[in-house]
Amino acid sequence: MVIAGGDGSFKGAQKLAHKGMNVIGIPCTIDGDISCSDYTIGFDTAVNTAMRAIDNIRDTASSHEKCSMIEVMGRNAGYIALWCGIANGAESVVIPETYDYNEVKIMKTIAKHRENGKKNNIIINAEGVGDTSKMAKRIQAISGIHVRATILSYIQRGGTPTCRDRVYASVMGAKAVDLLCEGKSNRIVAYKNGNFVDYDVDEALSMKGGMTEGLKYMYEILEDLSV
Amino acid sequence: MVIAGGDGSFKGAQKLAHKGMNVIGIPCTIDGDISCSDYTIGFDTAVNTAMRAIDNIRDTASSHEKCSMIEVMGRNAGYIALWCGIANGAESVVIPETYDYNEVKIMKTIAKHRENGKKNNIIINAEGVGDTSKMAKRIQAISGIHVRATILSYIQRGGTPTCRDRVYASVMGAKAVDLLCEGKSNRIVAYKNGNFVDYDVDEALSMKGGMTEGLKYMYEILEDLSV
Amino acid sequence: MVIAGGDGSFKGAQKLAHKGMNVIGIPCTIDGDISCSDYTIGFDTAVNTAMRAIDNIRDTASSHEKCSMIEVMGRNAGYIALWCGIANGAESVVIPETYDYNEVKIMKTIAKHRENGKKNNIIINAEGVGDTSKMAKRIQAISGIHVRATILSYIQRGGTPTCRDRVYASVMGAKAVDLLCEGKSNRIVAYKNGNFVDYDVDEALSMKGGMTEGLKYMYEILEDLSV
Amino acid sequence: MVIAGGDGSFKGAQKLAHKGMNVIGIPCTIDGDISCSDYTIGFDTAVNTAMRAIDNIRDTASSHEKCSMIEVMGRNAGYIALWCGIANGAESVVIPETYDYNEVKIMKTIAKHRENGKKNNIIINAEGVGDTSKMAKRIQAISGIHVRATILSYIQRGGTPTCRDRVYASVMGAKAVDLLCEGKSNRIVAYKNGNFVDYDVDEALSMKGGMTEGLKYMYEILEDLSV
Repeated sequence: MVIAGGDGSFKGAQKLAHKGMNVIGIPCTIDGDISCSDYTIGFDTAVNTAMRAIDNIRDTASSHEKCSMIEVMGRNAGYIALWCGIANGAESVVIPETYDYNEVKIMKTIAKHRENGKKNNIIINAEGVGDTSKMAKRIQAISGIHVRATILSYIQRGGTPTCRDRVYASVMGAKAVDLLCEGKSNRIVAYKNGNFVDYDVDEALSMKGGMTEGLKYMYEILEDLSV
Repeated sequence: MVIAGGDGSFKGAQKLAHKGMNVIGIPCTIDGDISCSDYTIGFDTAVNTAMRAIDNIRDTASSHEKCSMIEVMGRNAGYIALWCGIANGAESVVIPETYDYNEVKIMKTIAKHRENGKKNNIIINAEGVGDTSKMAKRIQAISGIHVRATILSYIQRGGTPTCRDRVYASVMGAKAVDLLCEGKSNRIVAYKNGNFVDYDVDEALSMKGGMTEGLKYMYEILEDLSV
Repeated sequence: MVIAGGDGSFKGAQKLAHKGMNVIGIPCTIDGDISCSDYTIGFDTAVNTAMRAIDNIRDTASSHEKCSMIEVMGRNAGYIALWCGIANGAESVVIPETYDYNEVKIMKTIAKHRENGKKNNIIINAEGVGDTSKMAKRIQAISGIHVRATILSYIQRGGTPTCRDRVYASVMGAKAVDLLCEGKSNRIVAYKNGNFVDYDVDEALSMKGGMTEGLKYMYEILEDLSV
Repeated sequence: MVIAGGDGSFKGAQKLAHKGMNVIGIPCTIDGDISCSDYTIGFDTAVNTAMRAIDNIRDTASSHEKCSMIEVMGRNAGYIALWCGIANGAESVVIPETYDYNEVKIMKTIAKHRENGKKNNIIINAEGVGDTSKMAKRIQAISGIHVRATILSYIQRGGTPTCRDRVYASVMGAKAVDLLCEGKSNRIVAYKNGNFVDYDVDEALSMKGGMTEGLKYMYEILEDLSV
């Protein structure tokens, strides 16, 4: 049996394995936040859909001098927000891994960009940081700058898969079948350091998530680029 | 001078024309609601963007048995909502031209579709009918059915133009220049009954909008198809 | 019975109707060339796919100073070529309705654009005018200008339908069913002068195609714009 | 100075570095074939464009029982062909790294798929294996199966960049600037084993390309999946 999902599904896989079934897990979520794998199936499709939606919003923002606050998915993780932040050239990205719930900082960033001559601002929120509509209203009330909120929501969860998602899903699926053919069970297929590998479920679940080195590096680049 | 815009811009064009400038107007809005013209530049691009976003939402709705309420643009007009309603096979479309602010009717429609075995519902709201987030919450509170609101907002106002928009814009632009070359002014280029024509601004502004025959016909088709 | 197709299918529909079946036809071809209807289902999807492919080719042509000759579909009709010609800002369009098989003229047009400072040329051929690969080679051999041929071919015949195609197909389908319910047969649903109408099959088949007024008008606009 | 390109550009970068300029290279080609880097900027955009074009061709092939032979770019490398092969579920992929110029084998593969009940075949050729139009004609002449050739050509070299291309380009660009700020020169930024690193140009140019382990692994998966 092959189970595609996240940490919750993997715990289920573990239980089935302990009961004697041969079970292999594949990391599959648009959120990008499964610790044992540098890639999760669905992420590339979701992030490209979000990016193109934000491209469109930027078109309007550019011609109307607006501030747009866009909520992307990702539950408690900032991967989609951070990738879009870099890809869309966002002025700010707000992610749960680093956000300190200080809205004054966000306002200062907007103000700084306006001083530097930027006529429009794109702020990308990961859904995990809170209610974007309310945040936009509070910031507008205090700063006086018109802030329009957009919630991309389930738009990011559909559509034709991208090439990366199709290829990695095929490779991971093939690897899962190979493992089953070898009589293995209770393992998770993962993409780590550029290679397709597999881990024991216990080992996979014990890996550290949150603000990983990779995420930290991306965040620094975003901050450098958005000055 | 060529002015691309809606009725407001055309009134401005008229003033300039009365002051002696040679001015021609071109109907240009994503909302589709300029009475003198059966087509307005920008509509096709916006409606295709909205449709593809709703396609994506349908993918998730189909696999999770959800009810989705999606707000498209259109100000006081229901064109985008109605076209998407037909193109996306929506279960209901709520447009300002016909909406009686009776949310019980919407709930009955959802209930009827559930009885008929439909596991998910797509309801498309034109922005002119009110606050979709609040409407979704009210309907969920009363009916007990989970309703997720999505506001497409400015996503619909950007992106690469579609072929129809590029071709009609080129033809209308060429016609406007021809009119100027003939020494004409105070006229609006329009697309009417399949042909590119031009009207005096007064005549154009006096035409009746709202629930036109064309819109009524589309609405009936939608009702037939969504049974 | 509802038959979706072109003139050939309609003749079949007629035979079935004469044998007593109730048959209604719907104009359906990407080529756009059914005389009784100003629109044929599939055209908008095909022409947008072709246009986006040519957008991509233009990106490369712009940065490499190339001449590109692109063959689009359309059998004996130039609709796709002409629409793309306007939408992509092609320097030339070669369509069967007007082409005199004089390749020297095409070369002169390229030469003229080069003199005017245009660094790259997009020439769009309707498939009905001949073998684009050979034409490109002949023109390159004589003129010395590098001409790269691209045949879009079946790329244009697939993909997710556009909104216009979905909506018009729904309306035409609904109209066909209405006609059947009224006991009518041997009729073709059509889109004419901005309205959905229906014709007797004999009448529909007798209508004149080729270089219609509409096509002529578009061709003139293209010539004006591509100077 | 930052130079974006392939091995040829990197040799140029080396010369400039030896003359005292501070030069950093970034691997940039749609072909995916720069040995020192597991990723080259442009690849993801090109391969997604090719994949969507082949999706469209598959739509027609499925409904018409055709065999399609599609030439993708990649010069002497099979990366685009192989990724599309997996993503599009191609029946065969012909790449320069493994092709033995035995067309009988290709015909046998088609025949085997037909025997297994597959009504249509997608064969993807990397441009490096030869003239696809002629190959299609030869195979059709001998096998009697209708084979339609499509050359995607420059369609793959344009369009809006994907998220992966934008993000990796930003990260590599930031890294190049960091290296310059540190006073370094004559180095190539690369993506290796999931990390962004940098190599001396000599070291980078000496790395082995061709049928790498990664490519071999992908090829085996394709062969397993296309049975």
